[in-house]
Amino acid sequence: MPKIDELCINTIRCLSIDIVQKANSGHPGAPMGMAPMAYVLWDRFLKHNPADPKWPDRDRFILSAGHASSMLYSLLHLTGYDLPLDELKQFRQWGSKTPGHPEYGLAPGVEATTGPLGQGFANGVGMAIAQSMLAQHYNRPGHEIFDHFIYSIVSDGDLEEGITAEAASLAGTLQLGRIVYLYDDNDISIEGHTDIAFKEDVGKRFEAYGWQVIGPLDGNDTEAIDGAIRKARAVTDQPSLIICRTVIGFGSPNKAGTAGAHGEPLGEDEIRLTKQNLGWPGEEPFTIPPEASGHFREAQERGKQKQADWDNKLQSYRKEYPQEAEQLEGELRGDLPQGWDTGLEGLFSNQEKPIATRAASGQVLNTIAPYLHSLMGGSADLSPSTKTIMKDRGDYSAEDYNGHNMHFGIREHAMGAIANGMALHGGVIPYAATFLVFYDYMRAPVRLAALMKLRVVFVFTHDSVGVGEDGPTHQPIEQLIGLRSVPNLITFRPADATETVEAWRGALEREDGPTALALSRQGLPVIDRTKLAPASGVHRGGYVLWEASTSPDVIIIATGSEVDIALKAGEVLQGEGIAARVVSMPSWELFDAQPQDYRDQVLPPNIRARVSIEAGTTLGWERYVGIDGIAIGVTHFGASAPSKVVYEKLGLTPQRVVEEVQKLVRKGNS
Amino acid sequence: MPKIDELCINTIRCLSIDIVQKANSGHPGAPMGMAPMAYVLWDRFLKHNPADPKWPDRDRFILSAGHASSMLYSLLHLTGYDLPLDELKQFRQWGSKTPGHPEYGLAPGVEATTGPLGQGFANGVGMAIAQSMLAQHYNRPGHEIFDHFIYSIVSDGDLEEGITAEAASLAGTLQLGRIVYLYDDNDISIEGHTDIAFKEDVGKRFEAYGWQVIGPLDGNDTEAIDGAIRKARAVTDQPSLIICRTVIGFGSPNKAGTAGAHGEPLGEDEIRLTKQNLGWPGEEPFTIPPEASGHFREAQERGKQKQADWDNKLQSYRKEYPQEAEQLEGELRGDLPQGWDTGLEGLFSNQEKPIATRAASGQVLNTIAPYLHSLMGGSADLSPSTKTIMKDRGDYSAEDYNGHNMHFGIREHAMGAIANGMALHGGVIPYAATFLVFYDYMRAPVRLAALMKLRVVFVFTHDSVGVGEDGPTHQPIEQLIGLRSVPNLITFRPADATETVEAWRGALEREDGPTALALSRQGLPVIDRTKLAPASGVHRGGYVLWEASTSPDVIIIATGSEVDIALKAGEVLQGEGIAARVVSMPSWELFDAQPQDYRDQVLPPNIRARVSIEAGTTLGWERYVGIDGIAIGVTHFGASAPSKVVYEKLGLTPQRVVEEVQKLVRKGNS
Repeated sequence: MPKIDELCINTIRCLSIDIVQKANSGHPGAPMGMAPMAYVLWDRFLKHNPADPKWPDRDRFILSAGHASSMLYSLLHLTGYDLPLDELKQFRQWGSKTPGHPEYGLAPGVEATTGPLGQGFANGVGMAIAQSMLAQHYNRPGHEIFDHFIYSIVSDGDLEEGITAEAASLAGTLQLGRIVYLYDDNDISIEGHTDIAFKEDVGKRFEAYGWQVIGPLDGNDTEAIDGAIRKARAVTDQPSLIICRTVIGFGSPNKAGTAGAHGEPLGEDEIRLTKQNLGWPGEEPFTIPPEASGHFREAQERGKQKQADWDNKLQSYRKEYPQEAEQLEGELRGDLPQGWDTGLEGLFSNQEKPIATRAASGQVLNTIAPYLHSLMGGSADLSPSTKTIMKDRGDYSAEDYNGHNMHFGIREHAMGAIANGMALHGGVIPYAATFLVFYDYMRAPVRLAALMKLRVVFVFTHDSVGVGEDGPTHQPIEQLIGLRSVPNLITFRPADATETVEAWRGALEREDGPTALALSRQGLPVIDRTKLAPASGVHRGGYVLWEASTSPDVIIIATGSEVDIALKAGEVLQGEGIAARVVSMPSWELFDAQPQDYRDQVLPPNIRARVSIEAGTTLGWERYVGIDGIAIGVTHFGASAPSKVVYEKLGLTPQRVVEEVQKLVRKGNS
Repeated sequence: MPKIDELCINTIRCLSIDIVQKANSGHPGAPMGMAPMAYVLWDRFLKHNPADPKWPDRDRFILSAGHASSMLYSLLHLTGYDLPLDELKQFRQWGSKTPGHPEYGLAPGVEATTGPLGQGFANGVGMAIAQSMLAQHYNRPGHEIFDHFIYSIVSDGDLEEGITAEAASLAGTLQLGRIVYLYDDNDISIEGHTDIAFKEDVGKRFEAYGWQVIGPLDGNDTEAIDGAIRKARAVTDQPSLIICRTVIGFGSPNKAGTAGAHGEPLGEDEIRLTKQNLGWPGEEPFTIPPEASGHFREAQERGKQKQADWDNKLQSYRKEYPQEAEQLEGELRGDLPQGWDTGLEGLFSNQEKPIATRAASGQVLNTIAPYLHSLMGGSADLSPSTKTIMKDRGDYSAEDYNGHNMHFGIREHAMGAIANGMALHGGVIPYAATFLVFYDYMRAPVRLAALMKLRVVFVFTHDSVGVGEDGPTHQPIEQLIGLRSVPNLITFRPADATETVEAWRGALEREDGPTALALSRQGLPVIDRTKLAPASGVHRGGYVLWEASTSPDVIIIATGSEVDIALKAGEVLQGEGIAARVVSMPSWELFDAQPQDYRDQVLPPNIRARVSIEAGTTLGWERYVGIDGIAIGVTHFGASAPSKVVYEKLGLTPQRVVEEVQKLVRKGNS
């Protein structure tokens, strides 16, 4: 190995272990084993410009094994990203850009928040999907605007997780040749040798998925790694997995090859021994030999040049294809094109029959799709039920990367993470759909979308016991509160078709986080907006939909399919001389974010006779009804029966609301 | 094919489609394709006794593709289980034993609640683990008390789900030869041909996992199926997958081989055509030809005989090994042996230093493990952190099925479902451990454990932002409310070591549902029970731990690691002349289940100055603090920094509690 390569690799290793030691917390072993593959990739292949981490045609590098973050921070610092050494010294400290696991949006050059295993692997599949769609749609002969690769380093843990199996199988089916993943095959996980739980033949498994599998090769053999990456890049219709046999904690005399190198600092003594063993020139922590520094920094000049070439390419593209270029640039900025929502105005004003909000959502989607090229998504094999097919937008497939309807297969977990990857890539607005109860299969990526502040629309239909006959396995109870409890996720549960329009509008206009739509299976009457309050109230989260009097005796709060029940109860109560106000509360998060005076207007603090109704757990509703109010809901599992029967039997009826209100009013009078 | 076989297979088909048609809801296509394999399995191999669905040595049959429930109900009825035809006619109706997807505990003979895809596949792996442990531990030469197989029919959807990949890889590693799964390979899923998302070579993938793969064979060829099952049973050190090529909706002239046969009734006309096409003798729906009926019912005599043989075996075992037999029978009943908890008394009475509740949990586990042979569990590759290793109980592995420490690998989703399968099998009490944030990877099996009322202990450590340096990807925020919102799940978040003892006691003594333990990473002072209320209060969910006065001005409610903060705040307030009561509330579910007068005693309705503190989302705490109280918590994502810094920065401190109380008291005074 050339001296400079060895020096640079050891620079990564030593910097990484120093970072962890300084923090007195972290994972030194993985960086020590991965350093050669990371070095070869970053030094010889990775197309990036440290001065512009957002350059659209850069290669993406995802450290799926996010616990090896100190290595990524080292690489970013060494190649000249805006990440000073002081930030590396602040690893895992409050307010630093170098948290324990890489977080998208903090250190420049971090392409995805990783740590929860398998997510990064699947994010990369999403990035490759976005890349391929944009390339197929926008590239022209001689104008390869999109010509980048998706690289990742993945670990044993990544490959054990089921999400990876899902994403890998789909990537193979879709022949995503731009994916080049390096597998850090070090045989060690936290409980010991991986053989205790993971004896499978990984290479054979990936071949079965349709991947090109290269190796196993010696993870310290830089030329072998070089050749493997070349081979991987050369095959254009298969994703590639390069199996690199490595040693966790490589170089550490007493901890190499053991779980002891995984999750805690090596200790100062062992670091000394390790540096001796590696023939490391530096005595002080955070030493960076000038030759290594100089070599790494060449990335800056290379990157500048490459991006300049690309800028020229884009300029000539702009000349030849001004319309495409304009659209493309808007999409890369994340703009919604002017007039994208014109079709939404009055979309359901002639809708007389009840319509399920999932069906209304399908109509909304198809109304805006022709104006919103960047919209791309699909379902985990439920599209006829989730109503998420965009007509005339084609199926995305290995035969046609220009299609916009995704078929994720029965793989909710990967679907979520792939949608996240699409959003991370940029240029597309992804949506992902399944039944609300199967949100349980994809909690982690929804959370990560929120943490990463990604514009992803999660469409969850069949949102209550209204699912009916499929029974409790398919009837969400605790999933709505689940959505609402995720920080930075906004959830809408629209009451009818008109609220569904506004919910979609809210989702698409939101740029700093994901949105979840909870939609009904069953038909719901369309609220007559000529008589009741306008649907624009949705954007304030909750609003007074109807009231018998401006000084009501009681407030009934409802969401989604139960708003109609609340309205009917309000009418009955009016007949009995009890003045009710009905509040539609499609989004708790938006309502809670309103100024106090608005919230007090909708829910006057002095009116404590409050009843909520929602076909889900009552837990959490006390926020609005308080200790003195009554929350009607479902606090046990549902049951298999026709939807209407289930609603009757579980007391999700106007009559029940009326009774509870009467109880409250009597109590207040006594 | 012998006439009787054909007739019986068509009986399954026709009964299944009639059931779906009568309900006007359900999935006719899968049963029509699967009928031959199900018939061969049930007719020639399945060891079961319809008169005693709980016979411990019966073979287990799991319909992982739970949507084909009408087929399972048909088989149960036909072979003589206590499931009358009237129940089949009540398919998917309120109160029936025949819900849309099979539910454990309703129809006799249903071994697992299935429907959410992949769960049944993984449940079976858990059953095989329990079987193998019990066999290895209890069987003696000539006394094969445990000698049964785990069969399942799995679908494309099952195999696309990541949980299946996780479970299959582990089953291969563990060489679970008792697993015989039939794969209904029909190429159709809801969105169309599986090729759109699922082109992988399934056989090769399973070979890579270490499975014996048999087929593909013609799913209508009963002799081929017969031979394949024989071959599968013959190989004892590999699980087997039999790939059966089938046609969804087989027999239906217009719907066979299409997604149209999947999820809705065929319709009366198509049923007529189908029955003609199959040469079906019956005109009326629900016709069962007497020859078929007679043939199916032979299962009763066979089963009776087999179980009688086994009873004899057990009796002679009892004579030769009375001690083992007694222990075994207790375990099969689910008893906790007398004196299992003697070591727990005063376990931490000499504990002076703070101790993390995860560490206390490890001590509890190791105190009871010697007395509780049935305890068996482990972690998703985090046992050094979750402290869930039982010393001297051995590692469960292919080399030693008698070990009790499981190594699930980095596979949370499968871990949960495997634990469920172990509980379903009986004879073991399983536990499964990971970090609380990774509950997100295993929400579905925790929910299903609750729905199935299984005794499973889910151990979730690192239960708050107290995780510290690992940062927001590893810091739970919304997971506690997530646990609490699952019906029939009981969650404990113990405040210290002494509450941890009671939490484990509560978990193990509970027989009708799962329990989750939320445990701290960081050390917590041990509450001095000689001065404060006894830890037995845990069993009431919430209790008064300390108070400055029996008529307090304010109530502070806390859980887990925040109880100590509340106590400190209480003392400070006392110094300021404000009398506080500190309530420890380790389990909301148990507290909510107490009689009103107890709850009113702990939280007197007239005291509305209430503050809660918990290092998680505040959502839900309004149940106890009401609209007028204050909930202190974390309503955004956490941050990477040392635990103490995070607590300080996020205001999880006694000082903050004091300030909020002062605000409340001032408000009350104004």
